[in-house]
Amino acid sequence: MIPRDHPRYRSLAARERLAASAREGVVTLEGLTAHGRGEAFDYLIGERTTESALLAARTAAAMLLAARSPVISVNGNTAALAAASLAELQGASRARVEVNLFHRTEERVGKITRLLESAGVEVLSGEAEPLLPLSHARALCLREGIFSADTVLVPLEDGDRCAALVSLGKRVIAIDLNPLSRTARTATLTVVDELTRALPNITRACGEITPEESERLMRSPDNTYFLRAALDEIRGNLEHALD
Amino acid sequence: MIPRDHPRYRSLAARERLAASAREGVVTLEGLTAHGRGEAFDYLIGERTTESALLAARTAAAMLLAARSPVISVNGNTAALAAASLAELQGASRARVEVNLFHRTEERVGKITRLLESAGVEVLSGEAEPLLPLSHARALCLREGIFSADTVLVPLEDGDRCAALVSLGKRVIAIDLNPLSRTARTATLTVVDELTRALPNITRACGEITPEESERLMRSPDNTYFLRAALDEIRGNLEHALD
Repeated sequence: MIPRDHPRYRSLAARERLAASAREGVVTLEGLTAHGRGEAFDYLIGERTTESALLAARTAAAMLLAARSPVISVNGNTAALAAASLAELQGASRARVEVNLFHRTEERVGKITRLLESAGVEVLSGEAEPLLPLSHARALCLREGIFSADTVLVPLEDGDRCAALVSLGKRVIAIDLNPLSRTARTATLTVVDELTRALPNITRACGEITPEESERLMRSPDNTYFLRAALDEIRGNLEHALD
Repeated sequence: MIPRDHPRYRSLAARERLAASAREGVVTLEGLTAHGRGEAFDYLIGERTTESALLAARTAAAMLLAARSPVISVNGNTAALAAASLAELQGASRARVEVNLFHRTEERVGKITRLLESAGVEVLSGEAEPLLPLSHARALCLREGIFSADTVLVPLEDGDRCAALVSLGKRVIAIDLNPLSRTARTATLTVVDELTRALPNITRACGEITPEESERLMRSPDNTYFLRAALDEIRGNLEHALD
């Protein structure tokens, strides 16, 4: 067990939760490696929400609230780390939640659905169809879910999937700790922050944003600005790291 | 299968090999996450051996050749990724090889030993004893291996373990892609490079180094220089990353 007062408690607890979820079949082995990549970038960004990431989270909230048909696409890592936060964001944003997996098996979809439901998330069900411009199982999604959404929140998404959603004309909000990933560069808006910090920030903003702030935020969700700001943070942190 | 001409073939193939080794019980789930952290730093460093990392590899070779009793400490990730390279390095450096695991079970020690032996590595055997100043299973090592070594090469080592070896007066050579990790900062010398690039560089240097070069390298294995050089590489790569 990790002591609660350990300076890196959150990071180490998340790592343990992911490993346990992998043993249960919720998270894939590839998901564990992806989590490690995220850990490295979070370490470089200082394991805290930066000012620009907080602004991005508020912009994400404005986009979700303004959407006609918002959907949150949930994979194994996201469900394992943040099921309760997803329930709260769903309540605040009225977005639908679809389980959508890169390494899709119906067994994993079932396990993740039950995990989310036990945390209070309402999960879309139905027959997935090959509706996305991707090969094989990666094309699968729900017609009344991601396919008909105008805005999709994709925490921890693969670059190809993100690009496919954008190519269908959807507004895509990514949560990604690597400001240079293809997902981060392809999305309409990227929140460069750790998932369990970013989701509550988006939820809180959903309850706080005034129509005026929302309109202001929606006028300029300049993704490049957010990516550059994250890179500047990392470079600044590296500059005096060995002093 | 990943096509051989994929620009990131080596990185993707290594990831697949690690996942397969985790299924076989050679690599732990924690090892997969650690590999992901390494991937992120390798991406930032440009997935290539930098000039300073090549110099560090030559210095590592000089240290191994000058040692009275050099030992290479091998864990699950190292065995999964580089068994054949370890056999070559052992031949060139005459170092002994000890399987030493953070998450130690005798079953895993056995699996990793067999994997190494099938690649031609001569592996130390014997009864591990709690000889290192660490708690529980982490203290275990072989009396005639790591405990009596004057120089230990630890590819992909944990920070506590690295510090324990240094505290016993050993010269510790780490291979670590994160120039800010506790391992990298604690080691006598850190090669900031990816394992499967670093090992062949050390092996090659073992065959090339003249006594004069060796003496020059041994006079100033300044670890801080190598860490700063790696950080400068990363910062330089980030500067124009979004242009």
